[in-house]
Amino acid sequence: MAENKHYIHKYETEAINQDGLNGASYVPNGLAVVVSNPLKDTPGANPEQLLGLSLSTCMGATLQAIEKENGLPHLADVRVHVSMVKGTSGLEFLVKARIHIPHITHAQAVDFVSQAEKRCPVSKLLSSSGNYTIEVVDSFDD
Amino acid sequence: MAENKHYIHKYETEAINQDGLNGASYVPNGLAVVVSNPLKDTPGANPEQLLGLSLSTCMGATLQAIEKENGLPHLADVRVHVSMVKGTSGLEFLVKARIHIPHITHAQAVDFVSQAEKRCPVSKLLSSSGNYTIEVVDSFDD
Repeated sequence: MAENKHYIHKYETEAINQDGLNGASYVPNGLAVVVSNPLKDTPGANPEQLLGLSLSTCMGATLQAIEKENGLPHLADVRVHVSMVKGTSGLEFLVKARIHIPHITHAQAVDFVSQAEKRCPVSKLLSSSGNYTIEVVDSFDD
Repeated sequence: MAENKHYIHKYETEAINQDGLNGASYVPNGLAVVVSNPLKDTPGANPEQLLGLSLSTCMGATLQAIEKENGLPHLADVRVHVSMVKGTSGLEFLVKARIHIPHITHAQAVDFVSQAEKRCPVSKLLSSSGNYTIEVVDSFDD
């Protein structure tokens, strides 16, 4: 039970949806986003994109901290690909984070990303899902 | 291995972060959001809020579909509370979804939410994390 662990509380926020996929979702006194069905042409963001933005920001921020701890400028580039697929148990998201860190060696990048994966709270939440992968790439071209 | 399952591909998108917590994250040709450190006063959204927006939208949309399947208008209200806490293994997010469906009984609401939990892809991704809980409430006052 998460509730029984000993935690130091740092921050809390709330996000609200009352419109389903046709309207907006919002944070009270914060960001409001128009949302829409990813399979329709209507303008708006969708859960896939919002999840990708959350994970990419979290991993980017964590890598920024690790770069700083190593006396390096922040150059890590995080791209999160989210696919919606239909399998035998209904709709699923496949989440694939690709990370490029241009100013260090591939081996160092693998080490930094492995640290970030264990520190970024969004990555931790997804880590027990078989649908989440993370990869260091030398470029985004392939 | 997710890759070996038989899936029908429905949709894909990408989110990018190059700025860490000081700048913006964006979807190419889509939503761009200013991001900031939740512990600082700088304006901007953070990974906690983006995750809450993703989950609340996904659960809201799934409940909208279930309400429709039952010949009901969409009145489900989804509120996702995300806390950042520090424990023995570093920072973690605690994610708590609360759902109020005003036009059906509590027992029906529990049934709808239990179905939605198994259908909403974001909920599925979080379901193996001990930090995710979901609850039907009769009001948001308590």
